[in-house]
Amino acid sequence: MGFDPKALKYNEAGLIPAIAQDSKSGEVLMMAWMNAEAVAKTLETQKVTYWSRSRQSFWIKGETSGHVQKLVDFRYDCDQDCILVLVEQTGAACHTNRRTCFYTAVRDGETVELMKPLED
Amino acid sequence: MGFDPKALKYNEAGLIPAIAQDSKSGEVLMMAWMNAEAVAKTLETQKVTYWSRSRQSFWIKGETSGHVQKLVDFRYDCDQDCILVLVEQTGAACHTNRRTCFYTAVRDGETVELMKPLED
Repeated sequence: MGFDPKALKYNEAGLIPAIAQDSKSGEVLMMAWMNAEAVAKTLETQKVTYWSRSRQSFWIKGETSGHVQKLVDFRYDCDQDCILVLVEQTGAACHTNRRTCFYTAVRDGETVELMKPLED
Repeated sequence: MGFDPKALKYNEAGLIPAIAQDSKSGEVLMMAWMNAEAVAKTLETQKVTYWSRSRQSFWIKGETSGHVQKLVDFRYDCDQDCILVLVEQTGAACHTNRRTCFYTAVRDGETVELMKPLED
């Protein structure tokens, strides 16, 4: 069946959460937001493109940092209200220069840092 | 450092997105929402507990279906506005009885169903 980005369910701000997962390691890298046009751009260009809520503009991941996400597979969930993109991640996904944004764990009530920033 | 669920960032409805990932296979299973109390309950009980937006009540995953999510690791992201729970998933995570909610892909402009419901 043909896919129309408008078939997904967007919140009152016109956005849908998108989870990025490393297609090789399986690591969950980050979560950000897309609007329908960002979904279309991601599929057209194979460059994962979010909508930046703070800048109110398209955010082609890695366009300035070089830490691009090449789309490997685009999936969405049973409720059509969440996206999962499998990606080839160049460098760090996180703006702190860590591979993933999810580098803090809570264990026995304490926060634990799981990884250090990558070396440049 | 001690962890306080209130240190996370919740949206205007008091909710934060939580991604569940199978701790063994690495498969992303689902995304749902927690409030601060659901976060506390998840950590206390090791049973992943969401906030159901449709029912406006706590949702101990699998309480009625038996498809529980045992917490293996609780993580959050650099912006403190998204949670990743690594879980041991019993049975299907999806209400359609599929292992994961992300069973639809978009390939060459067409939707593709990646898996069938599990047999009962």
